[in-house]
Amino acid sequence: MTIETAIEALRDLLGDRISTAGAILQQHGENEAYHPVTPPDAVAFPLNTAEVSEIVEICAAHGCPVVAYGTGTSLEGHQLAVEGGISLDMNRMNAVLAVHDEDMDVVVQPGVTREQLNDDLRATGLFFPVDPGANASLGGMAATRASGTTAVRYGTMKENVLALEVVLADGRIIRTGSRARKSSAGYDLTKLMVGSEGTLGIITELTLKLQGQPEAVSAAMCAFPDVESAVNTVITTIQSGIPMARMELVDANMARGFNLANGTDLPETPHLFVEFHGSEAGVAEQAKGFGEIAQDFGAAGFNWAEKAEDRNALWKMRHNAYHAHKALAPNLPGLSTDACVPISKLAEAIGYAGEEIVKLGLVYTIVGHVGDGNFHCLVSFDPGDEAQTAKVKAFIHALAQKAIALNGTVTGEHGIGIGKMQYMEEEHGEALGVMRAIKKALDPQNLLNPGKMLPPSNR
Amino acid sequence: MTIETAIEALRDLLGDRISTAGAILQQHGENEAYHPVTPPDAVAFPLNTAEVSEIVEICAAHGCPVVAYGTGTSLEGHQLAVEGGISLDMNRMNAVLAVHDEDMDVVVQPGVTREQLNDDLRATGLFFPVDPGANASLGGMAATRASGTTAVRYGTMKENVLALEVVLADGRIIRTGSRARKSSAGYDLTKLMVGSEGTLGIITELTLKLQGQPEAVSAAMCAFPDVESAVNTVITTIQSGIPMARMELVDANMARGFNLANGTDLPETPHLFVEFHGSEAGVAEQAKGFGEIAQDFGAAGFNWAEKAEDRNALWKMRHNAYHAHKALAPNLPGLSTDACVPISKLAEAIGYAGEEIVKLGLVYTIVGHVGDGNFHCLVSFDPGDEAQTAKVKAFIHALAQKAIALNGTVTGEHGIGIGKMQYMEEEHGEALGVMRAIKKALDPQNLLNPGKMLPPSNR
Repeated sequence: MTIETAIEALRDLLGDRISTAGAILQQHGENEAYHPVTPPDAVAFPLNTAEVSEIVEICAAHGCPVVAYGTGTSLEGHQLAVEGGISLDMNRMNAVLAVHDEDMDVVVQPGVTREQLNDDLRATGLFFPVDPGANASLGGMAATRASGTTAVRYGTMKENVLALEVVLADGRIIRTGSRARKSSAGYDLTKLMVGSEGTLGIITELTLKLQGQPEAVSAAMCAFPDVESAVNTVITTIQSGIPMARMELVDANMARGFNLANGTDLPETPHLFVEFHGSEAGVAEQAKGFGEIAQDFGAAGFNWAEKAEDRNALWKMRHNAYHAHKALAPNLPGLSTDACVPISKLAEAIGYAGEEIVKLGLVYTIVGHVGDGNFHCLVSFDPGDEAQTAKVKAFIHALAQKAIALNGTVTGEHGIGIGKMQYMEEEHGEALGVMRAIKKALDPQNLLNPGKMLPPSNR
Repeated sequence: MTIETAIEALRDLLGDRISTAGAILQQHGENEAYHPVTPPDAVAFPLNTAEVSEIVEICAAHGCPVVAYGTGTSLEGHQLAVEGGISLDMNRMNAVLAVHDEDMDVVVQPGVTREQLNDDLRATGLFFPVDPGANASLGGMAATRASGTTAVRYGTMKENVLALEVVLADGRIIRTGSRARKSSAGYDLTKLMVGSEGTLGIITELTLKLQGQPEAVSAAMCAFPDVESAVNTVITTIQSGIPMARMELVDANMARGFNLANGTDLPETPHLFVEFHGSEAGVAEQAKGFGEIAQDFGAAGFNWAEKAEDRNALWKMRHNAYHAHKALAPNLPGLSTDACVPISKLAEAIGYAGEEIVKLGLVYTIVGHVGDGNFHCLVSFDPGDEAQTAKVKAFIHALAQKAIALNGTVTGEHGIGIGKMQYMEEEHGEALGVMRAIKKALDPQNLLNPGKMLPPSNR
């Protein structure tokens, strides 16, 4: 009863859809964080829910860990088989199973990516709004409770997953909800599974809410004298009821990165990138209202993008922030870490982050989904340089402490994975015990993505 | 180690804040459903979280059930101590602890009612949108995952509770989140507790999202030839992106009830009551868009209410639906049951409900939060008449089956309590086992609101 015997048994089930080839293992052991390559013992490629159930049942019988794998774009090492075992690659389960126009929902397999889904929906007049940076799989996005630039208007994965089909640690298949928009019938297992990072079950199907494509869209960017003015603009805009679709902050360093990377001539100060969705008249009114508030807080250099091509150019610049960051330190990889605080504390948190990184002498930029109080720090460093790596870890540590002190959270959307396990106790206190009790109740052998999210207990 | 010894020990702690007086027990044993009066053994009136923790700890030591009690307005008997024990009356914990204007959140004790909160917020320009029929306590509303007429725009309690403080079954006190708007740090215990009906913990503090009071509000009602036309109007309105604040359906019977109760002269056909929130221009545009869609589906008899007094009169009529229902059967109590289905199935579900009740020969009306696919059937019957009671139960049973068959849920907002426990297995299948495992992990003695939500297991 070992990982080896599990792989033997899985070969009988999957034939050539289980692989121990070096290149495949290597690929599934890579990550976009700073963790060393950690290949699993084998990679399985299931085709359907029944097969996932059989795989998990075999693994349970043999005591073999199972780690779900989507696009591998996690920023906290979620997909790494740190205790060995099977990487369960969900990419062949990538069908859009049903689109319900009238109910504005869709049923998909977990390997469908967000861009694939939106391509598929194009003719329906509907779209799926959640947009993390990567073209991630929807199963992975649900597992990490991902969000992105539109969360301020349309919510995160938490608000946009209506129901899931999940394979439990013993192979049982459950459905966590119906297609009804709301329910008061029992514990909300959908929300328990969303953000559980593969530690409570394997997501094999998702029912997602969709949005109507807005009649009109308009976007803009403008410069602010400082982060505080930009944040105050955001606070006032939200309070005034203007239903912003996107409100993205970039700091002065990032503005410089944009100039370097794109040959633009932006003022090298903090900027907001904003977008408005609605009717023609509604969008015009929202834009006017926002513009007036922004000007009250000293905004200048407005760049309005009403045409689709201008808007695309504007958001392409924002979405390529990582490349702009790289322009500031061309030869070093960049690491992205996030935190989320009450919006009234956002300027303080961002100011603190900048000061701490400056003290450490590292190159950094900051971008934020400011409507939610969520921001990302991109830091350049050489993972091979121990001293630099230690500095980056010290910064992540300081930022996590600060976020908790400001009544926020150590991660708004990247998740815990391996990277932030050490802060779970400090952020959650006694509530961590409840999480451990739930994990133990649903996965008593600790085979589903072990070594993630929940730090080992000392008790 | 009995309920009696627990009450003894609690007297030492609480003095005259624990009562076994007949009238108090009787009051805490009454309910707005059809269940017999079920007095607890004692009623405790805690003043703060520490006291709740001590009470629960004492009850755990003595094996005594604890049932939280808010305003007693549950429609499914949630608050009844069906296995005896302590009714934990939270009404003296009714302070608004902190209002954070900039972050648009508020921290309250569980005994604060929704109307009390909104009175308190009046000067801030903010409001709390969730509005079940009763002026319920916010703790109770969270525990039952309540919603109401504005859920289509602002969400249910699920979307509006940011974080909770909860006393666990052993007396431990946990916090389930921070004041950050979003987080990916660990299992979402907030959403697990919301809707758990007091079976996993006692809510002792809530952090709630607030909304800005809209600049302009406008409301309207209009008549439709049939339910299907009204529902199709709702579907098309939502698809077209008009951000409706309220969309309430009443059926032809209820229109007749309104006429009888209020001396109005409405066409006795289905009606929609709608409300628009936004800027002056935005509201006008929304109203125009809705009006055009409604007319396409045969709406007539529009009654626009732009002035506050007209709007209040319109919503007063809707909110007094129960009294209008009573005008149809003055001498019989009315029971309210709810279900929720995908909106494309709503006309079918409502049609089915009407046919079934007509077959049973009972007086009924139907009102619905149609934007969510959630509707309520009010049925008149004499709880002392066994044959009638059996008919009502047969109807609730048939409706529950139909809701599940249409891929919906047996309750959209009333909850399970005692009344709908029997449908949990059918609605959730294997997922019920997960709920039971969580309950057992967090309340191994089964002392928190026992005999509710989770039906006894045969396994």
